[in-house]
Amino acid sequence: MKNNNMTKIALTMGDPAGIGAEIIVKAWAKDPQTMSHCYVAGDKQVMQRALHVCQQKLPKQQQSLLPQLAYFADWQAASKHIVCENPALMPVVQSCQAATQLPAFGSVQVEAGRMASECIQNATHVVLNKICNALVTAPIHKVALKQTGIDYPGHTEMLQALCAQHLGVNIADVPVRMMLANSDIKVVLNSVHVSLREAIESVQHDAIVQTVQITEQFLTRQLQKEGIKRSAIIALAGLNPHAGEDGRFGYEEMAHIKPAQKTLTQQNINVHGPYSPDTVFMTARAQAKKQPPFCDAIIAMYHDQGLIPVKYLGLDGGVNVTLGLPILRTSPDHGTAFDLAGTASADCSSLLEAVRLALKMS
Amino acid sequence: MKNNNMTKIALTMGDPAGIGAEIIVKAWAKDPQTMSHCYVAGDKQVMQRALHVCQQKLPKQQQSLLPQLAYFADWQAASKHIVCENPALMPVVQSCQAATQLPAFGSVQVEAGRMASECIQNATHVVLNKICNALVTAPIHKVALKQTGIDYPGHTEMLQALCAQHLGVNIADVPVRMMLANSDIKVVLNSVHVSLREAIESVQHDAIVQTVQITEQFLTRQLQKEGIKRSAIIALAGLNPHAGEDGRFGYEEMAHIKPAQKTLTQQNINVHGPYSPDTVFMTARAQAKKQPPFCDAIIAMYHDQGLIPVKYLGLDGGVNVTLGLPILRTSPDHGTAFDLAGTASADCSSLLEAVRLALKMS
Repeated sequence: MKNNNMTKIALTMGDPAGIGAEIIVKAWAKDPQTMSHCYVAGDKQVMQRALHVCQQKLPKQQQSLLPQLAYFADWQAASKHIVCENPALMPVVQSCQAATQLPAFGSVQVEAGRMASECIQNATHVVLNKICNALVTAPIHKVALKQTGIDYPGHTEMLQALCAQHLGVNIADVPVRMMLANSDIKVVLNSVHVSLREAIESVQHDAIVQTVQITEQFLTRQLQKEGIKRSAIIALAGLNPHAGEDGRFGYEEMAHIKPAQKTLTQQNINVHGPYSPDTVFMTARAQAKKQPPFCDAIIAMYHDQGLIPVKYLGLDGGVNVTLGLPILRTSPDHGTAFDLAGTASADCSSLLEAVRLALKMS
Repeated sequence: MKNNNMTKIALTMGDPAGIGAEIIVKAWAKDPQTMSHCYVAGDKQVMQRALHVCQQKLPKQQQSLLPQLAYFADWQAASKHIVCENPALMPVVQSCQAATQLPAFGSVQVEAGRMASECIQNATHVVLNKICNALVTAPIHKVALKQTGIDYPGHTEMLQALCAQHLGVNIADVPVRMMLANSDIKVVLNSVHVSLREAIESVQHDAIVQTVQITEQFLTRQLQKEGIKRSAIIALAGLNPHAGEDGRFGYEEMAHIKPAQKTLTQQNINVHGPYSPDTVFMTARAQAKKQPPFCDAIIAMYHDQGLIPVKYLGLDGGVNVTLGLPILRTSPDHGTAFDLAGTASADCSSLLEAVRLALKMS
């Protein structure tokens, strides 16, 4: 791609029945300088409809800020677009087969799932092939995806499979973890979309060691990029109330988490804990601005332990980063919000934060 | 007790090695009008030492606000004290055998555990016998308590046993639940001090029905006291990520939580859910001021699910209320903080909120 040296982001449009396309348009209106690093991996009609919705529904004073659509039939054609040159232009690269009938807003549709998944595959390959520097994904709907025959519990697992395929390795050889960040704390999940019973079974020495290693490598690299000369500090949450109180309320801290902490310390990784889960997130938030902070990230032992505090103050600033992939990928911290689709009322803050974080980290 | 008609609160001093006594003194200095409803169920020497610590360590401008200690050898003698008459007086009722040697600050000591537990027993009986209207408890240390031969996982279970004994019934006949409140949300826990594995086993139809019934009765009564003519609205959190996504990530929502919701709806209780745990606390907080609110309380399926969000913004405004007891009991949302004991630096906000809530609710 003939282009300048600015960071380029492949931004998927998400499920056409959801809010993805319109939050992309709204984010462009809100912060065109940031968004002008992006190529939308999407569909012309879907993005045109989103522009139209915003023209109809947004207050007049915001309409002059809406971007113009610059359409490219494929990534080859998109090489004519130079990022950041004209922030008012929103380059849309056709990344899926166009719909015979445009999916309606607000419900699960197989055609919507197909379009969303094709855009993800397309954008992922563009980043894997270094045409873009990072991937940002707008929300998809798992059930719509499943109806197209692609059965993943979420985006993350789909990206993991695509990257493993590209690298010619097994999925297990691309271990990934979800990191969630709000403006105060970063949380990395030891397990994601499994039942709580299964999540407890994942609280094992080797899995925790792997979670911390992936996290520490990623965050230490980020600190270096920011010119901070120390390695990342990781805090472990316990699994049980009060981190088990020395075995009184559960044994996993003694049997798995503390031994993992010891193993990691022997590898010169700065990891402490396990801490009582009910206060470690509070402590990390309260001491986030200290130098050095209480921690750079907390390892949560299951999905909700980490996501409840990250989301508590609202989703505006929440961003999801996938750690362990050969590419950098961020995404907003919310779903397709079918109930809001077509109203231009969904908040674009989390998507904008996801793009900002991708720029900062790449 | 010869006295006025003001609400009277029995306030235990907590573990003498911890911050209990000094946060009582600090709370008195900060808001004497509120605190003057209290009798401290404590020990003369312990409270004198706390006063002395505050005299030594607090800035000069705060020292003139410190209360004077009015000592009473027992509750009979304390009847000479009239609450709210002189807010600068802190009545201390000797509620335990004095120590032969005053426990040092900052460590687990059997003598400290004994004194703390005697004060709890004493104060609980005073409230059970309607000499006082409510019980507020400063923090104790479980290990110190255990060393005295009293082996409860926490305050709550000890109070449950004391009340059952007073009523002449089995402990199981006094089912209790912990409610935690910050300034935005109220959370009631379906289980408390058990391992996460055991907590999952408590996610059963009957236990959930009981949790909701206890919560709804308590909160509807509170609404009536506030002149609000509607019954309480209860939201159920799920157990699994995304509330299980119709059985995809765990079955407890379908097998236990939804059936409990149906049973309760048939009893005309306004209960909805189960909701995805990672967003229900955020939603309840965001819609707390709506009329009617999203909910008056969220039922958390385990300890940390509820306590992580309640504590996330800090412990200052956090209060614990025990539901189901024949008496009203509140307490601050933190522990003995041995590391801060003797420094007068511990924050008294949560204790003060506990007293305010007890006044409001009784």
